[in-house]
Amino acid sequence: MIAVQKRRGTLELMTIEIVSVGTELLLGQIVDTNAAWLSARLAEIGVGVYRRTTVGDNRERIVRALREALERADGAIAIGGLGPTEDDLTREAIAAVLNEPLVLDDGEAARLRAFFAARGREATERQLRQAMRPVSAQPIPNPHGTAPGLYAERDGKLIVAMPGPPNEFQPMAIDHVLPRLAARAGGRVIRSRVLRLCGIGESDAEAQLRDLIACENPTLAPLAKLGEVHFRITAHADSTEHAEQMIAATERAVRARLGAYIFGVDDTTLEQAVVESLRTAGQSLVVAESCTGGLLANRITSVPGSSEVFLGGVVSYSNALKQSLVGVPPELLAQYGAVSEPVAHAMAAGVRQRLGGWWGIGITGIAGPGGATPEKPVGLVYIGISDPDTTLVKQQLFVGDRQTIKYRATQYALWLLYKGVQGDGCGSLSLL
Amino acid sequence: MIAVQKRRGTLELMTIEIVSVGTELLLGQIVDTNAAWLSARLAEIGVGVYRRTTVGDNRERIVRALREALERADGAIAIGGLGPTEDDLTREAIAAVLNEPLVLDDGEAARLRAFFAARGREATERQLRQAMRPVSAQPIPNPHGTAPGLYAERDGKLIVAMPGPPNEFQPMAIDHVLPRLAARAGGRVIRSRVLRLCGIGESDAEAQLRDLIACENPTLAPLAKLGEVHFRITAHADSTEHAEQMIAATERAVRARLGAYIFGVDDTTLEQAVVESLRTAGQSLVVAESCTGGLLANRITSVPGSSEVFLGGVVSYSNALKQSLVGVPPELLAQYGAVSEPVAHAMAAGVRQRLGGWWGIGITGIAGPGGATPEKPVGLVYIGISDPDTTLVKQQLFVGDRQTIKYRATQYALWLLYKGVQGDGCGSLSLL
Repeated sequence: MIAVQKRRGTLELMTIEIVSVGTELLLGQIVDTNAAWLSARLAEIGVGVYRRTTVGDNRERIVRALREALERADGAIAIGGLGPTEDDLTREAIAAVLNEPLVLDDGEAARLRAFFAARGREATERQLRQAMRPVSAQPIPNPHGTAPGLYAERDGKLIVAMPGPPNEFQPMAIDHVLPRLAARAGGRVIRSRVLRLCGIGESDAEAQLRDLIACENPTLAPLAKLGEVHFRITAHADSTEHAEQMIAATERAVRARLGAYIFGVDDTTLEQAVVESLRTAGQSLVVAESCTGGLLANRITSVPGSSEVFLGGVVSYSNALKQSLVGVPPELLAQYGAVSEPVAHAMAAGVRQRLGGWWGIGITGIAGPGGATPEKPVGLVYIGISDPDTTLVKQQLFVGDRQTIKYRATQYALWLLYKGVQGDGCGSLSLL
Repeated sequence: MIAVQKRRGTLELMTIEIVSVGTELLLGQIVDTNAAWLSARLAEIGVGVYRRTTVGDNRERIVRALREALERADGAIAIGGLGPTEDDLTREAIAAVLNEPLVLDDGEAARLRAFFAARGREATERQLRQAMRPVSAQPIPNPHGTAPGLYAERDGKLIVAMPGPPNEFQPMAIDHVLPRLAARAGGRVIRSRVLRLCGIGESDAEAQLRDLIACENPTLAPLAKLGEVHFRITAHADSTEHAEQMIAATERAVRARLGAYIFGVDDTTLEQAVVESLRTAGQSLVVAESCTGGLLANRITSVPGSSEVFLGGVVSYSNALKQSLVGVPPELLAQYGAVSEPVAHAMAAGVRQRLGGWWGIGITGIAGPGGATPEKPVGLVYIGISDPDTTLVKQQLFVGDRQTIKYRATQYALWLLYKGVQGDGCGSLSLL
């Protein structure tokens, strides 16, 4: 917990209120993901958030919300309303709260002029409004957009403003605002890392990490995602090195117990991990999809550079195309039906051979809501995986709506493939 | 606009403040989609929302937030904190605001006892807390969960509480709360309909509807989405019939000007419109994707029942597969490159012929971030479409990151296909 020296002389939890600014938020046209993201980051560093306020693009309402927040908490962070248009009024509101005039910040003005000059344009009066700041406030650099943030203090309380676009807001919070909040509490730093797991449920994973989850520093927090589980390790310490050491120690402890399920850290997606492991192994991939209908190929090709390892695939939705494109024998379709272990086997092996990949994957199942029979319920999916030595098929029963079943089936296929590449072939998958 | 008689005797816009309750919101563990959803519905019926407040599961903070909201607005709607646990304190907070004791509501208590009896369990003391209400408050029925909502009035102001789970909250808002807000304004009803457009930009569409957008009732509100534009028509009237007539009149006016771009109403997606129009026409579809990597097939197969019209497709990512799977001549690839009009033409015609569909689509382009050349920038995409009579290719330059370019390319392909099916073949597309 970050503690600050309060006027009445006791050490207490530092508190911040978030003020989200934007009429589009109040009209429900966009969901306030920024506030949730910042709340989570503040919680990680032990800053208490007891209230969040959302107001529209109205100067007086922004002023009132900020004043009220500063009465209750040790600081207020405004998000949004810093852009160049007349609706962007957070700058003026903070000047009013500080009771100060706005002045042009020379450094930011020069940066804006250079920004537009590099694009063959001139910085307009309107754009230069973004370089204005209340006299005592400092601009916060924004390398990802035109509007800098603002940082001010008044009577020992903080006033911070950050722009609304998440790709500008998040880096500014991480690089400048969160470290400053930590510094105010005695130069402590906060670092965190997310471990991403697949192939294990949240409660099973939690049960094996209970002692670590009970720790106060570093904290270990689980987060269940569709088809995967994340654990966020957060350490606060007196130096970056120390925080990183603490994280590394917890990561080692998690890996010692659940390393077999970890496919990546921080923002690494399962499809990225798969593409990267295929690239490292120098192996290629082809896929034959029925019930997932192209989602597997789409997820893989969402990774930049995937064309190095992904040759292509077929979406053999009809039985005729299962025969003509990947050579599933018509007898198998007649005898076992399209959703069956032998057909998944033939799809995986067939697509591997016909399209010429090192790995072949074949998926057939019932995504619903129609198509089920008493023997073959919605969610039944067979996933075949084939390498130069062998082909094996896993049967799964997934729960959810059509999109969820499609997603879970591709997640399972990617996980099988990841373990197969890591484990040196299909043979290593029989125990999964 | 819903108008209420205010104390000072003038007719003004009714205003409501939303108070979201839940420590998990302040910790950023969940995003407040409820507040955004309700904000949008309130905007539709002309209720003004000038502030939203989020507080944790703390009785005093909920009380303070509600009191402040009631000072500013004509009513306060609390979301969350009505469940059976000790953390659920919204009920107690409203009792404090009303300065009334809580009493057991006999009807709700009987409903809860029956609910648990039907599941072979007894309603515990804790569960029965949910049937408590401030003396003057009415319970709002919740057919989807255990916690009823609350509805109270004090000094002419409304106090409403609804449970947090969206599958309980949304039906309660639609069936009870929104109609009551409308009724307070004189028994008026509100209806709305969304028209979905593709193939035209937001500003072009708005320019042609300016007079209708300026109307106060029905209102017509644009909303830009990735690759499409929506217009929501909202009418309030003294009867459902009258509101529907007003909506129909505005819809006719919009269709008279922009009917060529409208593919659906309300929740209809472009892929649903395509599948439905193919089904009606009795025509089938096959696709060959390169840069979209399976996304087109995935979007089509996300529509339940798409297997009736979608036979399948190929993701011919490598040049070798463009040749072997859809028969693109190697000379074309050598002479023009994979991203070219002739290759898109050959892919569309080839996949149609090889896979045997009525319609064939072929897409090749550069999704980025790599792969661009001075002549072929990131975002350059060729979309070929083929029917039994002819094949044509459109060149597009899409802006955005890899996922956005992939999406825009599939959106454009679906739009071409939709217009082709509606317009009786590829020939009708040359003017698009």
